[in-house]
Amino acid sequence: MIRTMTEFDFIRRIAARFAALPANGFEGIGDDCAVLPVDDGEALLFTSDLLTEGVHFLRAATSARELGRKSLAVNLSDVAAMGGRPVATLLSLSLPTDAAGDWAEEFMQGYYESSERFGVALVGGDTTRSESGIVIDVTAIGRADAARIKRRSDARAGDTVFVAGELGASGAGLRDILAGRYDTPLAAVHRNPQPQVAEGLWLGAKPEVHAMMDLSDGLASDIRHILERSHCGAVLDTERIPCAAGADTRLAACGGEDYKLLLTADSAHAERLATDFLKEFGEPLYPVGYITAGSELVWHENGRPVEPHWQGFLHF
Amino acid sequence: MIRTMTEFDFIRRIAARFAALPANGFEGIGDDCAVLPVDDGEALLFTSDLLTEGVHFLRAATSARELGRKSLAVNLSDVAAMGGRPVATLLSLSLPTDAAGDWAEEFMQGYYESSERFGVALVGGDTTRSESGIVIDVTAIGRADAARIKRRSDARAGDTVFVAGELGASGAGLRDILAGRYDTPLAAVHRNPQPQVAEGLWLGAKPEVHAMMDLSDGLASDIRHILERSHCGAVLDTERIPCAAGADTRLAACGGEDYKLLLTADSAHAERLATDFLKEFGEPLYPVGYITAGSELVWHENGRPVEPHWQGFLHF
Repeated sequence: MIRTMTEFDFIRRIAARFAALPANGFEGIGDDCAVLPVDDGEALLFTSDLLTEGVHFLRAATSARELGRKSLAVNLSDVAAMGGRPVATLLSLSLPTDAAGDWAEEFMQGYYESSERFGVALVGGDTTRSESGIVIDVTAIGRADAARIKRRSDARAGDTVFVAGELGASGAGLRDILAGRYDTPLAAVHRNPQPQVAEGLWLGAKPEVHAMMDLSDGLASDIRHILERSHCGAVLDTERIPCAAGADTRLAACGGEDYKLLLTADSAHAERLATDFLKEFGEPLYPVGYITAGSELVWHENGRPVEPHWQGFLHF
Repeated sequence: MIRTMTEFDFIRRIAARFAALPANGFEGIGDDCAVLPVDDGEALLFTSDLLTEGVHFLRAATSARELGRKSLAVNLSDVAAMGGRPVATLLSLSLPTDAAGDWAEEFMQGYYESSERFGVALVGGDTTRSESGIVIDVTAIGRADAARIKRRSDARAGDTVFVAGELGASGAGLRDILAGRYDTPLAAVHRNPQPQVAEGLWLGAKPEVHAMMDLSDGLASDIRHILERSHCGAVLDTERIPCAAGADTRLAACGGEDYKLLLTADSAHAERLATDFLKEFGEPLYPVGYITAGSELVWHENGRPVEPHWQGFLHF
């Protein structure tokens, strides 16, 4: 979900405060998922994502079925981002009266399709009436080999920074939707995010992959989480950002909800990793820069430092 | 959360449909929590509860701090209802602009107080803006000895049916609140539910306790879940329902959100169980009837079958 600075700040303060409580075996706030080691080297992963009507979607601009698929997809993307396999979800729905009948049935149809596609069980949740808009909250549970979990905190100086797909299509689609053009191919991309579950599992199994997360707020914003948690800097090349058809560099760097994986990998193995990934998935890993021992995010354009005018967040 | 028949029906149909998907090791929908066996005879428990402004609470009638405590409490009650120990939560908040500042801080203060009191970690969640009301969704995670988990499906003919506290105070408080009387002691009870976490753990450890759940929709409604899942009937005595001060039998039987435990226990050990419970917690277990081999819920009054006029759901 695209966040504002205020939200980041609020979450940061909550995390700092609740750190005083017993962890009960969990690695908590700071990564795409919370981690709980269980048995025989396995761990469980937990993540929640809210979708609120009027903020994350307009009922007129998306079908209930698409939204059902998306509600699951954005959570599975968080599990994939740590190299985990999603296994189950809990779904909470707050529905106004005019969405309680057909709309809810179609939403569940989409949710079922995504659950089936990714082999995920629905194990709980809650349903209530809403006096205002639709609110959807999904908690996803994943499993992973504890030794192979990818975190935001494991980037190392010298690592190559990759994105696992073209960027900006979702942001361009959102731009279309906000302009009232719901029927464009880009708008359809925005409404139908594809979580990189197989890709995340594959990358999770590679020891040369160090840090990983999914791109929900945009590369220019999300990379900062890796840098902050890994105590390092990065040089990223604007001209190497892979722009999806219909998107420009600004949208590719700052548009949210692409749900492609962002990762850093040992540069000695980076080329081989990218080749193997292409062989496996038919799409390359795109190198966009490298991790530095500093603490700054530096953008380069054709080898020279620049200060892109789109630094920070993109607001429509 | 108090549910309508439509909600029950919707949940039932969803559960039936999603039963076709792989369970991935989970026991899913049907109990207060989903169950996932992990290692060495342990299991994890998962539950989610939504609180929606205008449906579950009025901002004018509750402090943010109370609501923070309640949001956690209602989920911990579900974990307690299966004999589990709550260990962590994920908290999702959809907040309108006018609740994003002080209101959110006070809410988190209450949430922190409850988390601290019950030793529960906050390990994740999501925060977003809302274009309408406040929506709070909490997912709680518990741990339990897998062999001692209490389910709705384990009631046996002959079992004594107990409730673990007086009933109706919360319903009476809601009645006050809906009449605009926010400052009554009963309204305070409604706003400050106390999950029976220690009681649930204690009862969970007793093999003579068979079925258990928490009372969120009211005894007259909730007992039906145990009967349905256990394929049995029950005879309950209206005059044995323990009414809280300020409540009548109707409120005690049908008012929601008391969050007291409802359980069935081997009648050969029932008296001893109740005595020990009283010794441990200073309040008795109240026997309200017994489980039968039939499939009907029969109400008795002074030993004779009656059809209470408050059968079913209570709507204010």
